[in-house]
Amino acid sequence: MALNKNILLGHGSGGKLMHELIEQLFQPALLSSNGKVLNDAAVVQAGGARLAMTTDSFVVDPIFFPGGDIGAMAVYGTVNDLAVSGAHPLFLSAAFILEEGLPIADLRRIVDSMHRACAETGVKLVTGDTKVVNHGKGDKVFINTTGIGIIEQPVEISADRARPGDKILLSGAIAAHGVAIMLAREEIEFTRAILSDTAPLNGLVDDMLRASLAIHCMRDLTRGGLASALNEIAAASHVGFRIHEDCIPIQDEVKGACEILGLDPLHVANEGKLIAIVSPEDAEKILVSMRQNSHGQESVIIGEVIADQPGRVFMKTTVGGFRIVDMLAGEQLPRIC
Amino acid sequence: MALNKNILLGHGSGGKLMHELIEQLFQPALLSSNGKVLNDAAVVQAGGARLAMTTDSFVVDPIFFPGGDIGAMAVYGTVNDLAVSGAHPLFLSAAFILEEGLPIADLRRIVDSMHRACAETGVKLVTGDTKVVNHGKGDKVFINTTGIGIIEQPVEISADRARPGDKILLSGAIAAHGVAIMLAREEIEFTRAILSDTAPLNGLVDDMLRASLAIHCMRDLTRGGLASALNEIAAASHVGFRIHEDCIPIQDEVKGACEILGLDPLHVANEGKLIAIVSPEDAEKILVSMRQNSHGQESVIIGEVIADQPGRVFMKTTVGGFRIVDMLAGEQLPRIC
Repeated sequence: MALNKNILLGHGSGGKLMHELIEQLFQPALLSSNGKVLNDAAVVQAGGARLAMTTDSFVVDPIFFPGGDIGAMAVYGTVNDLAVSGAHPLFLSAAFILEEGLPIADLRRIVDSMHRACAETGVKLVTGDTKVVNHGKGDKVFINTTGIGIIEQPVEISADRARPGDKILLSGAIAAHGVAIMLAREEIEFTRAILSDTAPLNGLVDDMLRASLAIHCMRDLTRGGLASALNEIAAASHVGFRIHEDCIPIQDEVKGACEILGLDPLHVANEGKLIAIVSPEDAEKILVSMRQNSHGQESVIIGEVIADQPGRVFMKTTVGGFRIVDMLAGEQLPRIC
Repeated sequence: MALNKNILLGHGSGGKLMHELIEQLFQPALLSSNGKVLNDAAVVQAGGARLAMTTDSFVVDPIFFPGGDIGAMAVYGTVNDLAVSGAHPLFLSAAFILEEGLPIADLRRIVDSMHRACAETGVKLVTGDTKVVNHGKGDKVFINTTGIGIIEQPVEISADRARPGDKILLSGAIAAHGVAIMLAREEIEFTRAILSDTAPLNGLVDDMLRASLAIHCMRDLTRGGLASALNEIAAASHVGFRIHEDCIPIQDEVKGACEILGLDPLHVANEGKLIAIVSPEDAEKILVSMRQNSHGQESVIIGEVIADQPGRVFMKTTVGGFRIVDMLAGEQLPRIC
């Protein structure tokens, strides 16, 4: 499809519009990995070291929400992108775009949260930047974090490495983050609070890699949710996916909220969940290692890679039928990260 | 001074307010180089390689201006921060925060400009991110670039290494960028257009380092201008600076515009100029190498480091007196980069 004339909110939502923008505008002009698969992090060589590099700007609204805040999220998000590339996160930069009038107390709370998140993940924040924009030309605070990690293990984790027969592992219940943000924004109160799943995944990935190096693809599930991650990998690897609705964990409150809000939980963002596509022989071993980690206790095998229908994701539904799980088409939840 | 209660535009201007914010809020909580000198880039070790890492968000308004645009500026700015740390720029990330409604044609123009700037500087853009914020919650486009470079030479370039007797080199005429932005924003027309000096400095630094490794400090002159850069180095090195107004190149049109606009050119931002504090023995050799580079043809020695009055910058004025050159106190030109 040809690009629109103007930027739409959906261009930032992790779905089809964003992919069109990347494929038609950014990638041809910019990325030197042109023609190669876009993973969560770039893998580069520098002075003999094999490094991963990744960047993310965080524009989440509201900046404080049940279960997290923009500061912790900015640290975990970039750490997670490094981790799912098989890299050990080392260094982080943080760049702030502050809106004139932001209470210093809010900024301090965010910075303290980043400090704790750095300590928790073992990443070092080494450099930063601050810009201020006029009131009404920004929104409280936007944070960019860029991370460098080192890949020490002989792993090749990439979205184009899924093979028929591989198992699909999911590290826990989906859709909590997006729903928590949506409810916080609309100021809807449920009888039980729904908390964002914002969490660091580098420890979980360390445990998985200790169990087996036969991990072929890995993604943390952010914008576009489980559906987008699976579709991206299916397309890059030219394989099909078959997943089982029954197997996908989702909290009852989150499921209920999705029904009320008209959201498909497969499209809703997460901030502390990953999927891994792994060799069938080692799937069980990796699953056990995940369940022993506090961020992977509810890990499950949700399906398998198939040779048929490359680029497509099929879901066996609870009632017994099959449906195609497509990538998010437009904009569902703007500014969830 | 205690921090204000709210963020002011001046907190982003590169002067005293910004330093207070960094020293009182960011540095204690975040930077693991706590207690160490803040340079344009952090120097880190990864897998045996000595790397520099730096980040900058660009929020310049307008996004297209005489002599440049936000895209080229975002590439050059980060490349320059790496270069003045003695690093050879290798990899760049680019993260875009787009305002809903931005014309795709504008974005394409910016991305094309970044592409050319990458080719010119030899840096590879390897990873990116795109977020979209609602109309009225951003301003057209903000770009973060984060860069990694490798330090291959046995150099130690740091703001705390200026020594009495060292010479201060400046790579060309000052204040063009800030004035160009100000005039573009106010839609003031001069008989002769004033162009921003936006330019890459990595080739210039390569030439300087080939001439001599006796470069002690280096800064590219951005927010806060020449005055802030000198004050930062004087404070970090516990030395005084004596500069000579007569020696500081400035275009007549720029000087005239500063007088009309009530700006001190020493405080006005540049985007393609650097200062270097170097051993007196090698000053002439380095100066010659600078003048042979197209981005340093007007290079001059503007003064010297003195043992007296540590932390202070004195300027011998054209009329023969001395004045203290202070750091920019509040906000002079918001969003000039």
